[in-house]
Amino acid sequence: MTVVELIERKRDGGALTPQEWRELMTAYAAGDVPDYQIAALAMAVYFRGMDDGETEALTTAMLESGRMLELGQLKVPRVDKHSTGGVGDKVSIPLAPIVAACGVAVPMMSGRGLGHTGGTLDKLESIPGFRTRLTLEEAAKQVERHNCVLIGQTAEIAPADRRFYSLRDATATVEAIPLIAASIMSKKLAEGLTGLVLDVKTGAGAFMTRFEDSVKLAQTMIALGERRGCPTVALLTDMDAPLGIACGNAVEIIESIEVLKGRGPADVREITLAFATEMLVLGGTVPGPAAARARAEQALESGAALEKFRTIVAAQGGDAGVIDDPASVLPKAPIESVYRAESDGVVQRVEPRIIGRAITALGGGRTKVEDTVDPAVGFLVHARPGQQVRKGEPLATILARDDSGEMAARAALGRAFTIGQTAPAARPLISHRITKEGVEELPGAGAS
Amino acid sequence: MTVVELIERKRDGGALTPQEWRELMTAYAAGDVPDYQIAALAMAVYFRGMDDGETEALTTAMLESGRMLELGQLKVPRVDKHSTGGVGDKVSIPLAPIVAACGVAVPMMSGRGLGHTGGTLDKLESIPGFRTRLTLEEAAKQVERHNCVLIGQTAEIAPADRRFYSLRDATATVEAIPLIAASIMSKKLAEGLTGLVLDVKTGAGAFMTRFEDSVKLAQTMIALGERRGCPTVALLTDMDAPLGIACGNAVEIIESIEVLKGRGPADVREITLAFATEMLVLGGTVPGPAAARARAEQALESGAALEKFRTIVAAQGGDAGVIDDPASVLPKAPIESVYRAESDGVVQRVEPRIIGRAITALGGGRTKVEDTVDPAVGFLVHARPGQQVRKGEPLATILARDDSGEMAARAALGRAFTIGQTAPAARPLISHRITKEGVEELPGAGAS
Repeated sequence: MTVVELIERKRDGGALTPQEWRELMTAYAAGDVPDYQIAALAMAVYFRGMDDGETEALTTAMLESGRMLELGQLKVPRVDKHSTGGVGDKVSIPLAPIVAACGVAVPMMSGRGLGHTGGTLDKLESIPGFRTRLTLEEAAKQVERHNCVLIGQTAEIAPADRRFYSLRDATATVEAIPLIAASIMSKKLAEGLTGLVLDVKTGAGAFMTRFEDSVKLAQTMIALGERRGCPTVALLTDMDAPLGIACGNAVEIIESIEVLKGRGPADVREITLAFATEMLVLGGTVPGPAAARARAEQALESGAALEKFRTIVAAQGGDAGVIDDPASVLPKAPIESVYRAESDGVVQRVEPRIIGRAITALGGGRTKVEDTVDPAVGFLVHARPGQQVRKGEPLATILARDDSGEMAARAALGRAFTIGQTAPAARPLISHRITKEGVEELPGAGAS
Repeated sequence: MTVVELIERKRDGGALTPQEWRELMTAYAAGDVPDYQIAALAMAVYFRGMDDGETEALTTAMLESGRMLELGQLKVPRVDKHSTGGVGDKVSIPLAPIVAACGVAVPMMSGRGLGHTGGTLDKLESIPGFRTRLTLEEAAKQVERHNCVLIGQTAEIAPADRRFYSLRDATATVEAIPLIAASIMSKKLAEGLTGLVLDVKTGAGAFMTRFEDSVKLAQTMIALGERRGCPTVALLTDMDAPLGIACGNAVEIIESIEVLKGRGPADVREITLAFATEMLVLGGTVPGPAAARARAEQALESGAALEKFRTIVAAQGGDAGVIDDPASVLPKAPIESVYRAESDGVVQRVEPRIIGRAITALGGGRTKVEDTVDPAVGFLVHARPGQQVRKGEPLATILARDDSGEMAARAALGRAFTIGQTAPAARPLISHRITKEGVEELPGAGAS
């Protein structure tokens, strides 16, 4: 069977066998199959999809192309969270210490920002000295010692995925649900987890803008996790406006620390606690969701979560002074200017993609993987959809490196905010809970 | 505009502007765009197609990536034929000398065999010494002197197409009508023609097996030729069974010389004369089709076409003794064995793809571009669909290099021939004539 014949079969609507996916990805990771053949195959998958068996085989093949975090000797359960990404989504940063403080290990491997979405690693690296590039051995040791590590995908984890992902990025084949699911799960399953919670974003700022696609992506990932013996649950959360107030790198660290101090924006705190609850339930150290929620809230109130974060920052070489005085430790943008409402009315929309792209234009994000980011720039978005505002009232603060950046950011905010006369329909912050059993609507979830 | 954005637009059903196609192909030919991006784009074109403007822009871009045959100073008209390929299709070889002998120049650039189809260059190279790799200057001089040259695509002709074609071959994106049309026409229009005739094959052994696809391909190429000022006509011809008797390389040279001597199988002679007629009419040196046909027949009867072929073979370094004694000049297979009918009945089918692939298995064709071919091997297919046969009667002769090849070829013939009780429906040899005015059915055309 030649690679051309495999491409042809997929192109014509057929399926590759698990054995074929495995051999193909092994050969690809070894450099024995050229990028152009995998690019053509990925585009054929974009149009034809993959069945469950294929998606699982691809995931397994990419997972097994590399090493895993060796945590099997740990007595405590190991649970991670993955978010499909959005604007202002700093939830991982307060969440991991909360869960770790409650006795469940969190071996968290995160990504960098790309396009309009930010990345946890970039945010963490705005803390002076913070190292996200640990070896697998260092990471495993830190989990043993502190119940938590916050790192990036190492070269040893799923190298076939790493090569395939950057190829997809260059060939407009990122947006294929089975490929997205296989890519995420090949990395998450390499963490040696006993449970996984997925934050699947939906709305204008999400990677998936359509609800059905978000559900399909969640279900595909859940099936992959469950079949590999890793219980997996997803919450669908709103990404139709930026999450919280801070959007950028350093400012999101400040907001994360606020949450750990029991303060912070209500939406960030709520999503953080909802995921902590799911993770503690999956960890199995609490009798049920109510106890898990109480446990997580207590970790915040007692300061245990904040202290856990201090420990992690110090363990990974970061300046732990950030906990007590973030403003003086973190880099600060030279220009801070206020963007004000041009008329009275109700905020209809705060377009998250425009905000996200404006952060990148300010230098705080990436258009290419190789770009470096400016940790200091970004926005504080004070106004949110449904809020009544008066002409001249501050809607946002621009954090810029220079005047031209500030002007471009100001123009972007002009496009991002829509002010009208009637209140927009409220959107639930957490709309659905998805498990292997099915999709459950959460009507009582707090509206954003 | 980045290449990823162009791929994305095509993937989502949009069109690239002529300017974008030009810039993309120029950059690709220069090595500034990686194969993997063009591979993804080609697969997106496979699913989404291209509009007429895009196909023309791609053709022009590939044409202008290289040089052209400089024949503008020639007083005589210059007409070529292109066939979409099949099994036993040696028509170019007798055709070019006939037309050249009638005063119309034929600067013929042909291809090599690939997959189940044979190639004119491979057949010509079975004549000892015959050089198909001339420079453009040598080729132009030979056309001036002898009205005809039989060469391959040089590195200078449409290099973007050359690179793109081999990429498509490796990525299962060959079968996209606009890409096929642009590839063929970018080379043909580089010959500096005043007219072009297309042999679009249809049936089980053709590249396009469905009638509508054949018509669409013909119309696309006609539109490209006419818009570039090259009057173009297509004939749809049958490829549901091998053409003629000889299938292989050296044996097809023998059959071609037979046709030039006024003999040869009726179907090969008929197609050759039909294309000669079209080419002479396009050349404009005869008052109409009837005169053109008479002129072509006369070139055969007088021996002028045969002498023209002798001149061309000698001019290109070949052993001209092949004309008078082909059997002793051409390489001969060590094994000749007869395949006989296993029962009485009527031949239902002679599956051309099976015959074509069996030639490749014997060593007479290519599965990869780099393969070398054995000129001596192949088949003589004596029986054809509709023919009444008796048990034990010879249906074909196998020409093999060794016993294992002979056995495999015998097994292939067992699958290629179907013998039944009722006569199969007759298929016209030349079914339609297609011009810029439309599609004309040719009901009177001789049935095969």
